[in-house]
Amino acid sequence: MSIIVQKYGGTSIGTIEKISSVAEKIIKEKNNGNKVVVVVSAMSGETNKLLDLAKSIDPDVSGRELDVLVSTGEQVTISLLALTLNNKGHKAISLTGSQAGITTDSAFNKARIESIDNTSIKKYLEEGNVVIVAGFQGVTNSGDITTLGRGGSDTSAVAISVALDAKECQIFTDVDGVYTTDPRISDGAKKIDDITTEEMLELSSQGSKVLQPRAVEFAGKYDVGIRVLSSFKDGSGTLIKKENDDKMEKAIISGIAFNKDEAQLTIRGVPDQPGIASLILGPIADHNIDVDMIVQNVGEDGLANFTFTVPRNDYKVAFQSLEKSSKKLNANKVTGNNKIVKISMVGVGMRTHAGIASKMFSVLAENKINISMISTSEIKISVVTDEENLKTAVNVLHKAFNLDQPH
Amino acid sequence: MSIIVQKYGGTSIGTIEKISSVAEKIIKEKNNGNKVVVVVSAMSGETNKLLDLAKSIDPDVSGRELDVLVSTGEQVTISLLALTLNNKGHKAISLTGSQAGITTDSAFNKARIESIDNTSIKKYLEEGNVVIVAGFQGVTNSGDITTLGRGGSDTSAVAISVALDAKECQIFTDVDGVYTTDPRISDGAKKIDDITTEEMLELSSQGSKVLQPRAVEFAGKYDVGIRVLSSFKDGSGTLIKKENDDKMEKAIISGIAFNKDEAQLTIRGVPDQPGIASLILGPIADHNIDVDMIVQNVGEDGLANFTFTVPRNDYKVAFQSLEKSSKKLNANKVTGNNKIVKISMVGVGMRTHAGIASKMFSVLAENKINISMISTSEIKISVVTDEENLKTAVNVLHKAFNLDQPH
Repeated sequence: MSIIVQKYGGTSIGTIEKISSVAEKIIKEKNNGNKVVVVVSAMSGETNKLLDLAKSIDPDVSGRELDVLVSTGEQVTISLLALTLNNKGHKAISLTGSQAGITTDSAFNKARIESIDNTSIKKYLEEGNVVIVAGFQGVTNSGDITTLGRGGSDTSAVAISVALDAKECQIFTDVDGVYTTDPRISDGAKKIDDITTEEMLELSSQGSKVLQPRAVEFAGKYDVGIRVLSSFKDGSGTLIKKENDDKMEKAIISGIAFNKDEAQLTIRGVPDQPGIASLILGPIADHNIDVDMIVQNVGEDGLANFTFTVPRNDYKVAFQSLEKSSKKLNANKVTGNNKIVKISMVGVGMRTHAGIASKMFSVLAENKINISMISTSEIKISVVTDEENLKTAVNVLHKAFNLDQPH
Repeated sequence: MSIIVQKYGGTSIGTIEKISSVAEKIIKEKNNGNKVVVVVSAMSGETNKLLDLAKSIDPDVSGRELDVLVSTGEQVTISLLALTLNNKGHKAISLTGSQAGITTDSAFNKARIESIDNTSIKKYLEEGNVVIVAGFQGVTNSGDITTLGRGGSDTSAVAISVALDAKECQIFTDVDGVYTTDPRISDGAKKIDDITTEEMLELSSQGSKVLQPRAVEFAGKYDVGIRVLSSFKDGSGTLIKKENDDKMEKAIISGIAFNKDEAQLTIRGVPDQPGIASLILGPIADHNIDVDMIVQNVGEDGLANFTFTVPRNDYKVAFQSLEKSSKKLNANKVTGNNKIVKISMVGVGMRTHAGIASKMFSVLAENKINISMISTSEIKISVVTDEENLKTAVNVLHKAFNLDQPH
């Protein structure tokens, strides 16, 4: 008898009716002869409602008490799902993060799972229960309630799968799998049947919002298979697994992701000197603004141009901060663009196939798409271009790399 | 440094603004040099909202999962109150029933507190925190969440007061104390400054909804003083304490309570025989209907008339059940009245003063108020009359026993 872990997000369990159809999916899996552990998020909208309450007390709310508050969202859904299964004649028991033995560090609001004591879950499974665990939450060694931060339910599900040595961790969501690119942008987008955790990691960090990067990372580390499935229709979804040698013949490029949530800033004509990067980025970090891509080059005049991207929401603050730095550093000029998109091609095949980058650039050039930044990793190439180029760029790349062909 | 336990009900903390003014009351008590533990209910309406969700799954919902669900109501308020105190610059920490060490039996939905391990609360008090505990909930020895049933927050507050050897348990509510009778019925109603737990027990069981009977019972058993206070205005409220010998000179009658939630049923002309009461009441109990007052008398013909009261909501079902029994028992007739009121006079002074009952009956008779049932206990006399007599009866009794005079 295998253990299957299923995770349902907020939109999958947003109403009593939806909870009922989730229960049917669980019963089906149980009738297949499996032991089922279910991890759930809060009903859609609930977490935000609780956050709004807290923010009406303190706009900058954070810390221990916030986790006591928002963790109630999942506690509501675990009990409603257990009641629904009970009412359909199936044994089910709900467990909070604490009751499920999920111990985290004490970084409230963004805690990390340290260990899972699987005793309770195993006992209830042995007794024939569907075990329903509150995602997104845990407890510290001293008994304080913690939450894992946004999207933490995926991580809970993967961690529980590891702790139970589950056969598979099924993540139910509102899409039926991972696609070669966003189907809203490219008609040719194809569902991917399987993909490595590394590729998925690059795809999810780069803006494919199907799975939380932390969950994928965790699954890769402990070699658990994740299957992304639709809550609303049947299908085999996408299986995300650690890379196996016998799969090296697969497609060079797995998918194309993009991110429209960034903005680009450039400081021009900075006297090149040691430590210049930290003098520019230090004040940005002081504003708690995350920097993503960074490019620096030095012209013939010995003056450097320094370009980086920040979350689009932080564009204004970052721009003002950079103008201040500009005076101190005797730079020529600060420019920016908050209508950019970062487009990333991801694939483990890149490692063994040269020329992917040059092909990418030439395809874009042929289509008159100008690139302002480039960044690469072992299995990814990202470029920044004007947002208006998004659709054309994704489509020409998708076609040029045969992602619209069966593979 | 004394420990004060304060309890705030749902209407006192129904909005963020009200939570803020509760926080001010707590700060005031802390500034008086006391250590403060606060017990809170769910925000008004929240528990019903959660129950409605559960009932939409199963109209007869009960058991373990229901407690996982409804206990979130208090968990929300403890965190919001702690956040509010933090935001006003005061150290505060919230504890769920489980975190506060409140162990109960495993009678889900109506659990009883078995013990309180005060280690956590004491530790946080020592560190200078206001400790905010979720009322109405606890945890079993095996870690399951339980609730104490409606009104259980009062019981939580009293039990915590006992566990901490608190100086006083202050119950904040929407009235400013216990009154000699309902001020809406009698203009002469006076606030009582102090009252014994036994009297309060009779008053609260008899329909004065200020305090939960279980909480009063608990306070009496462990000799904790309860003070009922208004959440919305200042005042000394009513102190409820175990009877002390030096107080025997107090008023004979403390107050007059009434209950309009009952209905009366009579089965006439039943052949008197052993076991007749159980033959009549057995079928009623089988419908899960609670019987309150019971009166039986036998006429000269050897036939008995048997009268009892049931909750008004159960009147129809009880009537039908009684008609069935009537046939089996060869009784003459079933009659009923669902427009009755039970009026109770309560006072420890009754024990030492004869003639209270006869004075009560004669006052009612002088005012042409007909009584259909009488029941007495050591410190209480209850009579049943038509609901239309309520106002007159309460007022003439209130005056006759000098409850409108200062005492």
